[in-house]
Amino acid sequence: MPSPQRLATLRHYFPLTRWLSDYQRSDFISDLIAGMVVGVLLIPQGMAYAFLAGLPPQYGLYAAIIPLLIYALLGSSRSLAVGPVAIASLMVGSTIADATASGLGDPVSIAINLSLLVGTILICLRILQLGSIVNFMSHSVISGFTSAAALLIGVSQLRHLTGLAIPNDGFITDSLGFLLQHLSSINGITLLLGLLGLLVLWFCKAKLAGILSRSPLPDWLIQPLCRAGPMFAMIISILFVASSGLAQHDQIAIIGKIPQGLPVIGLISIDLQLWQQLLTPAILIALIGFLESVSVGTTLASRERERIDPNKELVALGAANLGAAFSGTYPVAGGFGRSMVNFASGARTTIASIIAALMVAITVSFLTPLFYYLPKAILGAVIIMAVLPLIDIHAFRASWTFNKADALTMFSTFIAVLTLGVELGILCGIGISFLLFIYRSSQPHIAVVGRVGNSQHFRNVARHEVTTDKHILAIRVDESLYFANTRFVEDFIRAQCASRREVEHVIMICNAVNFIDASALESLENLTLQLASEGVTLHLAEVKGPIMDRLQQTTFLQQLSPGQVFFTADEAMCALTKATAEGQPSKGQLS
Amino acid sequence: MPSPQRLATLRHYFPLTRWLSDYQRSDFISDLIAGMVVGVLLIPQGMAYAFLAGLPPQYGLYAAIIPLLIYALLGSSRSLAVGPVAIASLMVGSTIADATASGLGDPVSIAINLSLLVGTILICLRILQLGSIVNFMSHSVISGFTSAAALLIGVSQLRHLTGLAIPNDGFITDSLGFLLQHLSSINGITLLLGLLGLLVLWFCKAKLAGILSRSPLPDWLIQPLCRAGPMFAMIISILFVASSGLAQHDQIAIIGKIPQGLPVIGLISIDLQLWQQLLTPAILIALIGFLESVSVGTTLASRERERIDPNKELVALGAANLGAAFSGTYPVAGGFGRSMVNFASGARTTIASIIAALMVAITVSFLTPLFYYLPKAILGAVIIMAVLPLIDIHAFRASWTFNKADALTMFSTFIAVLTLGVELGILCGIGISFLLFIYRSSQPHIAVVGRVGNSQHFRNVARHEVTTDKHILAIRVDESLYFANTRFVEDFIRAQCASRREVEHVIMICNAVNFIDASALESLENLTLQLASEGVTLHLAEVKGPIMDRLQQTTFLQQLSPGQVFFTADEAMCALTKATAEGQPSKGQLS
Repeated sequence: MPSPQRLATLRHYFPLTRWLSDYQRSDFISDLIAGMVVGVLLIPQGMAYAFLAGLPPQYGLYAAIIPLLIYALLGSSRSLAVGPVAIASLMVGSTIADATASGLGDPVSIAINLSLLVGTILICLRILQLGSIVNFMSHSVISGFTSAAALLIGVSQLRHLTGLAIPNDGFITDSLGFLLQHLSSINGITLLLGLLGLLVLWFCKAKLAGILSRSPLPDWLIQPLCRAGPMFAMIISILFVASSGLAQHDQIAIIGKIPQGLPVIGLISIDLQLWQQLLTPAILIALIGFLESVSVGTTLASRERERIDPNKELVALGAANLGAAFSGTYPVAGGFGRSMVNFASGARTTIASIIAALMVAITVSFLTPLFYYLPKAILGAVIIMAVLPLIDIHAFRASWTFNKADALTMFSTFIAVLTLGVELGILCGIGISFLLFIYRSSQPHIAVVGRVGNSQHFRNVARHEVTTDKHILAIRVDESLYFANTRFVEDFIRAQCASRREVEHVIMICNAVNFIDASALESLENLTLQLASEGVTLHLAEVKGPIMDRLQQTTFLQQLSPGQVFFTADEAMCALTKATAEGQPSKGQLS
Repeated sequence: MPSPQRLATLRHYFPLTRWLSDYQRSDFISDLIAGMVVGVLLIPQGMAYAFLAGLPPQYGLYAAIIPLLIYALLGSSRSLAVGPVAIASLMVGSTIADATASGLGDPVSIAINLSLLVGTILICLRILQLGSIVNFMSHSVISGFTSAAALLIGVSQLRHLTGLAIPNDGFITDSLGFLLQHLSSINGITLLLGLLGLLVLWFCKAKLAGILSRSPLPDWLIQPLCRAGPMFAMIISILFVASSGLAQHDQIAIIGKIPQGLPVIGLISIDLQLWQQLLTPAILIALIGFLESVSVGTTLASRERERIDPNKELVALGAANLGAAFSGTYPVAGGFGRSMVNFASGARTTIASIIAALMVAITVSFLTPLFYYLPKAILGAVIIMAVLPLIDIHAFRASWTFNKADALTMFSTFIAVLTLGVELGILCGIGISFLLFIYRSSQPHIAVVGRVGNSQHFRNVARHEVTTDKHILAIRVDESLYFANTRFVEDFIRAQCASRREVEHVIMICNAVNFIDASALESLENLTLQLASEGVTLHLAEVKGPIMDRLQQTTFLQQLSPGQVFFTADEAMCALTKATAEGQPSKGQLS
């Protein structure tokens, strides 16, 4: 029996041990069913995604064994389904294509090195406490990227559905152009098979549940049956191809021989030149994979009123990817589709993942000969059905109504990924989201404010019934003052003063000013001087503590004099109204 | 006599005509003196800067004739001295070196094309109303860039001061390394001459005024005499070299023959491939030149309680650069040093610039043979003395005390320019300033606030004496809510709620929230749900008009319910205090 302290440590590092402490028989049955459903989905998807990554199909299965077991031990999400996923596979595929073109090795060794780098990067992010770096990828960038990647993935599968050697260089126009030019050469049987596959998959996903619910089948069986669509499609197509003899006459492309046996844990040769080339894609794969896993994990956890721990996820996914590297395969992540299936099928803990991994292990060990006749067109259909829901037109429309900048970011990321490729596209999207953010804050909202009724509250004169004093101009700048907007703010205040000749005092209400940088400080100094030369005194009000601390280290407060820094806008208004009312010679009286 | 309307138009487009309407004889005398002082400075500087740009010396003089006349007509600054400037010359030099290395033509035709592009870009910026783009280059970036460029310029002149063929590839370490390796091969006479030149220049600049002020010379003569240091140094060195016969024995490098005559207005051949390569440097030269001109112009104008018009400056500088192109020379800008001299010498209008241009024109037409014996070491010394004041260590120290991020930007730009070159360096600096801005706003200041005394004012509990209610957590987020900080804010609020079990209401005071993007909206929706599941209600207060307009277009306000949006923090606090006091079952009572 371990000591309580050791137990706590164990539970801290291995969330599974915590869940097992009150694990019931019924939990296990739930996990068993969910695990089997996911396993049945994982086998076709694994093979299909390996294809997408430009690897032989067994590597997709290898990626669905050891990484799953590792995640099951370390992961903080009960129902996240880790393994080969569509988007990461696409990114791995484009990286492998680039790296092999530069003569940096064979696809498999590149994939292994990528896994190693992805795992290392994730664990480094944890050690350096930099997990929050994913926050810099905005929702809109990810959404635009995902839609574009899904479209690219869908189009890339047209080669398997048509039997045409469509160039797969990541440029959608090339692929579609080639398709249109070679319409007459399409392999009719392949196309038919592919379309039938799509039909079966769609039927299982969209219609089967409705039909079965009217049958005498028990409810707990209906859900798994509907999820097994890809497996049905595979089995039917294998039987059809094997019996028809179409494959023997090369009329249909099949998977062929898959080596039997579990992946062998191996050593990895270190190639610094290769790592240098793989570093950027590895960072992107790591970040996107982590982000997808955390967001799916958070969504599922919140449905059970639980939370996942992003730090634990960094470690768990990092270790899972190292596991992928040492079992000789390509990077993994938590996938959207299978996690949803896992959750919906009732997974209680990561035991479900262990069941799924065992099913895949059994398949790899004994059943690969059964897949000999599996047509590639069916794998293509499986991929297409898996990625279609990721194309999210609704998100674009929703963000257009709420925030044009978000919609613009989403759309430009989408276009950038389609035209510049996956890697450059997402970097572009991140850059655009940054630029738009800076652009927005470079033209801040500035309101002229007045007192609301008799309160101490000041609001925009254009929006509320407020009282103002014609000798006092109170403005509120709704942005921090920094290099990109100082001139804008300066110009606004100058223009306001120029159009209101009676103004003697300008109060700048700084409750929305969160910092002032060196450029803005200089601009304020200039503004103070220029206003003074026109007989106008600048005052500040509601300056925040951290800013005040810094201003006190400079000579600005002396330069501001006779202008003052008031604690509140109310105090400023009272003091200045009194001062002008007490018959200080106002500009108006002088001229 | 033109109609009043035409006169107004004339005055609008040609600020000089406005100033001439009350131009006095005394104004002309001031302009004449200032123009002659600037002219005397312009002749050696023009030749020296042409050198820096990798062009024969006469091109620096050409750049000081027609562009000055054009600016004199169109410019809105009375005392800005346009012409060849150090930093633009360095940038032109590095561009020319790159372009000639790529075999894109001879230095002069590249320089002419650069002028054409720079002029066109500036005028396009005016037409597209994009002049404010320069605001995106922060003060710190420009300061770091200027210091590094000045250092690069200084080091580049060591070849003229030592007579060594120091490689001038823009990498300071290469130059210094070469210098150290070849210390023994330094040309002693050249070095001596250069150091003497520096001594004379320094003496005229720093000491002469003090000595002359004690002499019987009239005051109006002292200032011009001190400014003529470069001219003195040139004349003395020419006399020395010509009489000593050193140049005949190749012991000292001299300027040699300069073609006599004014620049010929010519046509420019269009070379799209060249333009493509020159575009990025041209944009940077245009922006930096514009920024330098506007900031010098603004500084000088504010000393006379005037303002310059950035839009007019775009047109004036654009036209001046087109003038440079058609007179066959390289880009110009408003320079810091000569403008200061122009102002200090009493320039009243741009007539001073016309005088200076005429002096240069006379020199080019008749006096170039006099410069035959001018040693290059003296030109090097002139450049070094001109750029030394641009190395601004004080600015770095000042920004370090006020704002570490600014200091970091300045320092990294400085290092980037020195290590990556002028162009990439400044782009890097801009990128860093953007990233730091986003990084800063990704970890916003969040304050738990309470009521100040009996006022309606709420401030940070950590900084002020305030009263709070243990059932109500009022927080103020000092930043807009957007993708980079949503998780940070969410985590802060959750952590606060977790540590204060009695909290029933969270009021998020949004007076510093200037916008909410789609990522943040989703995060707020999640937060509302999660807090609700813990029995805590989220409320908003002081939401700004523009944000409220947008929120009303979404379903968020329904999701927030029973949470409310209060007009002020005060109202929120009153309403919620009353609600909890009225015996609504609080969490504490329930558990």
